[in-house]
Amino acid sequence: MEALLRQSRTMCPFLHKTSPATLRSLSTSTTAVQQVSPGGGAMSNLQVVARRCPVMSKALAVQSSRAGNAFLAGAYGGTRAYSSRVPRAHLHTTRAKEAQAVDNSPMRRHHERYPPQIQPSAPRVEGQAAYNAPPEPPKVPRFDYDGFYQNELDKKHKDKSYRYFNNINRLAKEFPRAHKDTPEGRVTVWCSNDYLGMGRNPQVLKKMHETLDTYGAGAGGTRNISGHNQHAVGLERTLAKLHSKEAALVFSSCYVANDATLATLGSKFPNCVILSDSSNHASMIQGIRHSGAKKMVFKHNDVADLEAKLASLPPEVPKIIAFESVYSMCGSIGPIEEICDLADKYGAITFLDEVHAVGMYGPHGAGVAEHLDFEAHANGKPLGTIQDRIDIITGTLGKAYGCVGGYIAGSAKMVDTIRSLAPGFIFTTSLPPATMAGAEAAIEYQMAYKGDRRLQQLHTRAVKQQLAEKDIPVIPNPSHIIPVLVGNAEVAKQASDLLLEDWDIYVQAINYPTVPVGQERLRITPTPGHVREFRDHLVTALDSVWNQLGIKRTSNWAAEGGFIGVGEEGKAVVEPLWTDEQLGLTSIAAEMKTGGSALNLLEGVLDEERKEVAQAASAAA
Amino acid sequence: MEALLRQSRTMCPFLHKTSPATLRSLSTSTTAVQQVSPGGGAMSNLQVVARRCPVMSKALAVQSSRAGNAFLAGAYGGTRAYSSRVPRAHLHTTRAKEAQAVDNSPMRRHHERYPPQIQPSAPRVEGQAAYNAPPEPPKVPRFDYDGFYQNELDKKHKDKSYRYFNNINRLAKEFPRAHKDTPEGRVTVWCSNDYLGMGRNPQVLKKMHETLDTYGAGAGGTRNISGHNQHAVGLERTLAKLHSKEAALVFSSCYVANDATLATLGSKFPNCVILSDSSNHASMIQGIRHSGAKKMVFKHNDVADLEAKLASLPPEVPKIIAFESVYSMCGSIGPIEEICDLADKYGAITFLDEVHAVGMYGPHGAGVAEHLDFEAHANGKPLGTIQDRIDIITGTLGKAYGCVGGYIAGSAKMVDTIRSLAPGFIFTTSLPPATMAGAEAAIEYQMAYKGDRRLQQLHTRAVKQQLAEKDIPVIPNPSHIIPVLVGNAEVAKQASDLLLEDWDIYVQAINYPTVPVGQERLRITPTPGHVREFRDHLVTALDSVWNQLGIKRTSNWAAEGGFIGVGEEGKAVVEPLWTDEQLGLTSIAAEMKTGGSALNLLEGVLDEERKEVAQAASAAA
Repeated sequence: MEALLRQSRTMCPFLHKTSPATLRSLSTSTTAVQQVSPGGGAMSNLQVVARRCPVMSKALAVQSSRAGNAFLAGAYGGTRAYSSRVPRAHLHTTRAKEAQAVDNSPMRRHHERYPPQIQPSAPRVEGQAAYNAPPEPPKVPRFDYDGFYQNELDKKHKDKSYRYFNNINRLAKEFPRAHKDTPEGRVTVWCSNDYLGMGRNPQVLKKMHETLDTYGAGAGGTRNISGHNQHAVGLERTLAKLHSKEAALVFSSCYVANDATLATLGSKFPNCVILSDSSNHASMIQGIRHSGAKKMVFKHNDVADLEAKLASLPPEVPKIIAFESVYSMCGSIGPIEEICDLADKYGAITFLDEVHAVGMYGPHGAGVAEHLDFEAHANGKPLGTIQDRIDIITGTLGKAYGCVGGYIAGSAKMVDTIRSLAPGFIFTTSLPPATMAGAEAAIEYQMAYKGDRRLQQLHTRAVKQQLAEKDIPVIPNPSHIIPVLVGNAEVAKQASDLLLEDWDIYVQAINYPTVPVGQERLRITPTPGHVREFRDHLVTALDSVWNQLGIKRTSNWAAEGGFIGVGEEGKAVVEPLWTDEQLGLTSIAAEMKTGGSALNLLEGVLDEERKEVAQAASAAA
Repeated sequence: MEALLRQSRTMCPFLHKTSPATLRSLSTSTTAVQQVSPGGGAMSNLQVVARRCPVMSKALAVQSSRAGNAFLAGAYGGTRAYSSRVPRAHLHTTRAKEAQAVDNSPMRRHHERYPPQIQPSAPRVEGQAAYNAPPEPPKVPRFDYDGFYQNELDKKHKDKSYRYFNNINRLAKEFPRAHKDTPEGRVTVWCSNDYLGMGRNPQVLKKMHETLDTYGAGAGGTRNISGHNQHAVGLERTLAKLHSKEAALVFSSCYVANDATLATLGSKFPNCVILSDSSNHASMIQGIRHSGAKKMVFKHNDVADLEAKLASLPPEVPKIIAFESVYSMCGSIGPIEEICDLADKYGAITFLDEVHAVGMYGPHGAGVAEHLDFEAHANGKPLGTIQDRIDIITGTLGKAYGCVGGYIAGSAKMVDTIRSLAPGFIFTTSLPPATMAGAEAAIEYQMAYKGDRRLQQLHTRAVKQQLAEKDIPVIPNPSHIIPVLVGNAEVAKQASDLLLEDWDIYVQAINYPTVPVGQERLRITPTPGHVREFRDHLVTALDSVWNQLGIKRTSNWAAEGGFIGVGEEGKAVVEPLWTDEQLGLTSIAAEMKTGGSALNLLEGVLDEERKEVAQAASAAA
């Protein structure tokens, strides 16, 4: 035994380093919430932990089965003291009478319902009075499930993270307007992720109507069992083409795509390490957790920190760098090329979430990776571009493409591996044919037409400029997201409520845990539909609400030295990713330098754009 | 240190019981697939395991950060030997030229793209030649990702579990027929989970068309951010009503609903134990795994085994019993009432997956739990019924309801807790308004009209009867599933291929891992649309294919003593859950006893049903 212990001490970092004090603390109970019966004990933290350890839990299982579960019972230390709890089941006394006609043969109930598998054993005696009656009211102490739920909800209310959903019905024919819970009245939606208004695009809707009529409402099965069809084939082919990859695979959502792909690769690659940006979306965080792989979080967009972490790992170990192009809550953009360089240098693969970028960046709307080599992709030369260097791109069909669903794109072998191994892909019903057909139509439309995303960028520039002129604090970023800093959860909700009630403007407040405490914000997302009347109204409303609630202006933040980019002196101006040239503004920009009003000139361009869009819409209809 | 080790030996079941030999085997490398550089080492199994242990991994992380990751590097034992790998990145040399116009300012690229967060450190010198050029070809040994994918795919091919998807396009106007990859030709689909043909129901499609036109293609956001609307409110209200529960919550799919709900409850309930039927669906297995809770698997439908496991746990520990009503691959039905009794007796809550039952059982289509108290529910008296005793019911909108999506139903507090805590619900785009409206219409239709599910049951009885007459082996069960036993993966695929190619019948072969090796089958699902001509054709085709491939008949299995219910002597006849009375067959049954042909009499009833359905359809149109 001495040799064994010595060996364990060498190999087991826990035993090797943990202090007796820590071990003592681990041996205390965790069960603050749990009601322990007077005669009972509780599991120690160490025992809880042991049962989650793949090695120890196996040992426990073996012991448990050998000892007829005596060990587990011992571990819990439970005695079967009975309480006087009133059982839920006493209500069931009504059933025996009312359901008599359905099932009046106890033998049948017991012997015929469960084939072809094992029968419930110890059948009760036929005609036994207790059979049709409910079981004796159980009298056991039991975990207080309802109390637990109530406690969790109380915590959410207390820390102001309890969510009240706003009933908002976006009207296709009046985009970007909506009605609330009744059909009367209108609000302008300023926080939708239907970024380009593709949800009401006539070509998308036409395709969906036709597909609904011909192929029905649902797919009717998983991809393997009757749910694979020409719409899945076509959509995946189009997605692969969009990203210039060999293959693509569609999932119920990009949440599922991220979760399933990271969980599968992270668990299958031997000793995999996943390096994850600290601002990554919940779906990636879950996927990494579910993989069981080692996770290393690097500081948001900090390639030096990422490199330090990569350098700490041996080169031959499989590594996935998981990050985003546009980070949805602050609008920052990931250093994609630098991360590709690091991936090459340290033998990692790259996993890039383009959810808030597809449809909106690049000459074909493939996202930021495409945008970084704008001319190469515009000229049909994807080889060797940054996008080409990314191993796995994930995206959504539910935001700029206006539908629902998510996908991955990459090499044929990688995609086929995920297709073959990921339970979240295999064991779920396919998206409906009409959804897939509509999404494909939306992608093709945006591949061919840049007008919507240019207009989105121009509207974004206009709103940012107008807010700057009003001293309203926008967290600077190069993307289409406009995060307006509030800095307090209750005030952010009040501002959102006031905008909705007094101004018919819907902007959801973004609070913890979606953003850190103290960074609460209103997140505004202009679309091609947010023309001048809506923008002017928004800015006036925000200015008024800022006064009404006494929310800090940019100059207030500046006086305090600035905060997360707002009012920070000496920082380089943040230029938008879409350049003036790409937006066709170069001549205007030249004119602006001679003293013209930037806003007026921008409005001139926007007027032109509006006409173009109207033309395109009428041509499509 | 001696005291610490003594303490550890007492508390740690691993150290306490593991033999030196086992420890030795754990200290060897796992990295069979991984290419290890000549000078490098590999992680031991024990180290892999240690990093998955919540306690040990924390200790590792602390050590790693203290030692500047030196420990981790040591753990891997890697040296940075370089190989002569040809880098992917050399292709990137084309980019600098082609993308020149996009981004010709290195300073801008480095200083303006990543705000508002931390900048990439160590910016390269402006104008440095290496900047616009690709990085030096990296020369590191790296994990062979492509080789790994290839190896995984090879394994799938080798064990015959590689999946070839059939391109099947189900035609709404010709249900249950479809075309293959081209619009010409027709096949009859016999394995769809659009169990009632609701995917082509005129009322569902009408509702979807209207909603598409008014509210567009997608929801445009998560439920919290602009994706909550009257369709979500209405659908969840209808689902709660369907199951006579306080509340319901809609997810992207029931895979997500099961995964998110079990993962959330299992991880939040302190020391939770989840008791899981051995035949549970992958989504539940994943949810339990993701919860990190202790899992105990009980034998399929074996309440004695479940009770033994429950009895081994202390009463006050929170426990979830997770099971299904209709098990999709064998058609068996869970002992719901007995499990409710056990849950009450041992202080557990019940989690019942009704995915393959909703729409099809019970007077309102709420599933098997409702069906068990048919009369009570038909009379609007749900209190105290078995369904009322179930704590959490999960279901799908993508099978009998013909659309897509999933849900949970239960107490208001439980649902609000999941709504507030489950990342898989919170951080994903809502289902499209038209999908939710269509699903609600489908549920309401099936709540009001029993004809479809009666016809489904009658067609199921007819097919089972005809197959029995042909000695074709059906695994007996009380549900609408017809599992036809083949018993070999290759032969099952051959049979499926022959049916499709020679007979224009689509029935997917179900192989490992969906069913155990040796239990491979064709899974047939009759619908209200599978009228006599289709059924006769199916039975003729199966009979021919059985001859052609020499597949065992029921009598062959019987000669070997029977197998999983097929050809087993002395077993009680399995009666369908839908009784003759519930199907309105009582008088026919009486007549059958006097010697009439059962099949002919059944066809008589079916003729009547067909007329009724046609009437209902024309009334709806």
